[in-house]
Amino acid sequence: MVSIKDVAKEAGVSVTTVSRVINNRGYIGKETRKKVEKAMAAIDYSPNQIARALQRSQSYLLGVIVPDSEHPFFAELIKNIELFAYQHNYKILLCNSLDEAEKEANYIGMLKENRVDGIIMCSQTLDIEEYKKVKLPIVSFDRIMSNSIPYVGSDNLNGGTIATQHLIESGCKQLLHISGPLDIDVLPNRRADAFKLTCMKHEIPFKVIEQEYSRKAFSLYKNYETFIEEQVADELAKYDGVFCSNDMLAYALYIHAKKNNIPVPDQLKIVGYDYMSFTRILQDPKLTTIKQPADRLGRELCSTLVKMIEDKEGYKPNNTIVDVELIKGDTT
Amino acid sequence: MVSIKDVAKEAGVSVTTVSRVINNRGYIGKETRKKVEKAMAAIDYSPNQIARALQRSQSYLLGVIVPDSEHPFFAELIKNIELFAYQHNYKILLCNSLDEAEKEANYIGMLKENRVDGIIMCSQTLDIEEYKKVKLPIVSFDRIMSNSIPYVGSDNLNGGTIATQHLIESGCKQLLHISGPLDIDVLPNRRADAFKLTCMKHEIPFKVIEQEYSRKAFSLYKNYETFIEEQVADELAKYDGVFCSNDMLAYALYIHAKKNNIPVPDQLKIVGYDYMSFTRILQDPKLTTIKQPADRLGRELCSTLVKMIEDKEGYKPNNTIVDVELIKGDTT
Repeated sequence: MVSIKDVAKEAGVSVTTVSRVINNRGYIGKETRKKVEKAMAAIDYSPNQIARALQRSQSYLLGVIVPDSEHPFFAELIKNIELFAYQHNYKILLCNSLDEAEKEANYIGMLKENRVDGIIMCSQTLDIEEYKKVKLPIVSFDRIMSNSIPYVGSDNLNGGTIATQHLIESGCKQLLHISGPLDIDVLPNRRADAFKLTCMKHEIPFKVIEQEYSRKAFSLYKNYETFIEEQVADELAKYDGVFCSNDMLAYALYIHAKKNNIPVPDQLKIVGYDYMSFTRILQDPKLTTIKQPADRLGRELCSTLVKMIEDKEGYKPNNTIVDVELIKGDTT
Repeated sequence: MVSIKDVAKEAGVSVTTVSRVINNRGYIGKETRKKVEKAMAAIDYSPNQIARALQRSQSYLLGVIVPDSEHPFFAELIKNIELFAYQHNYKILLCNSLDEAEKEANYIGMLKENRVDGIIMCSQTLDIEEYKKVKLPIVSFDRIMSNSIPYVGSDNLNGGTIATQHLIESGCKQLLHISGPLDIDVLPNRRADAFKLTCMKHEIPFKVIEQEYSRKAFSLYKNYETFIEEQVADELAKYDGVFCSNDMLAYALYIHAKKNNIPVPDQLKIVGYDYMSFTRILQDPKLTTIKQPADRLGRELCSTLVKMIEDKEGYKPNNTIVDVELIKGDTT
């Protein structure tokens, strides 16, 4: 195995100089740095980051736990986390919890063992108490966990408000909201709160149908289809506008309406939430939806975590709420 | 910091016994194991895998380099790699090369530094010579690199054959194939080879239009749309059947045809390749396409790499070609 001594010999400098270049510490002239880097390349020397991590107590690894990395919204979020991490010399360890509490707990254990520098937590099955026990820096997506764990999310309250207002302004008189499961206190529940408040403010009759918590099936479109048929179809005739808590659901509702000859948007108006890649690619219909920008959310999650890691003393927990906007499509 | 000595004290056993439990070496009675595990949990002790990796020379980390983790096909592939890795106690480091040779080279360097146990290489911009220099176990997706680097891919040759045959059997008399860039020798080029051979065998006039290599835009549907308009539209009237080398392209072609009042499938038949999540969710149209199963491909990539890592002496490079099938939709 090639060692730091071999690099020093090849470059014609001292071992200390090589060590300075590798660890980026102390003053090194440009020419000397080049000489050392050239020598490292010539004899194919890779500084052993495992050994360096032990010395420095930093691994430059970030754990990223998501419910399902295949879901278009999370796929986009992960990519943007990774791009930011790469620019700052971090790499990400990707974990799919599949919304199983046990798997999520296992991952946290594994990440602790691997001595990641911090965790971005986008999965939300474990009790908040479990996270509080973790001694690593954590940033959460879409969930308030504690005062010491900062969160990043889109402006769910405003998103719910503008979605509902848009339906009312488009002439709807009876509104339905299909929400995610409301029993875990996560930020997307604010979409339902905003929907109710806005309907009350405008004296519009409304109803909320809550999706049940479905394990292992997060990204399966088929499940949304079944849900619409079994839980929504019978009541649909009463409403002329529906705000769906995500785009996959909005699309499933649109397909159901089409199959059952319910004209969209004339008889039924539909608004989604996400504006994820599937929605952006989809040409027929172009969904009316609330855009939560996965690129900005990913960057904010990663930059918050890196700040916590690199400025342990000075960092004050700082939550980030990212703006949303209405994207007008053909379904309203 | 809690140490192995504290665990031994808490459990009332020797340090050697705790070490045996942690490293899963030597005989340990069931009761003793339980006692040690309970003690570890009680005082929140995580064995330091970094230190253990140094001793054992295994990190249980796998590098996964893809062009773009947001692309629906790769998002699905990654998820399935991760699920298999988790079952075998490995974790994955995710890297997006964005089809930039420099970034890909950087990643390989970073992965060497982090002492990953092996690399799954799904990005294909670097020269094959660069990979041969890497001393780690590598498995490649869709590319033959060398005799010592096993590859996994779908049966591109058969895929191209059944796609073309299906168009001919559906009555097409003039066929077009839109291929990916053919200048890098990757396995998906066999789709174009099979297309040409099948057309010749059936004496059907044909043409191949090659997509140029487009950086940083791998997952952007917009680019496929522009490509169809600029490079394909003018010639389209000559053909009654098109085999597209991926689903995103097939969808862009369908949308173009619809906008220009070209009836699909009556006047123009379209076959894609992938059957990725976007295609599966899409209801209108249901694309006719060749399914390459991302779940099986992901598992095969990961299991091949784990075999190479865990049986360094005995492993003989073993390439895997996964079956494809025609999914009949509404575009033929």
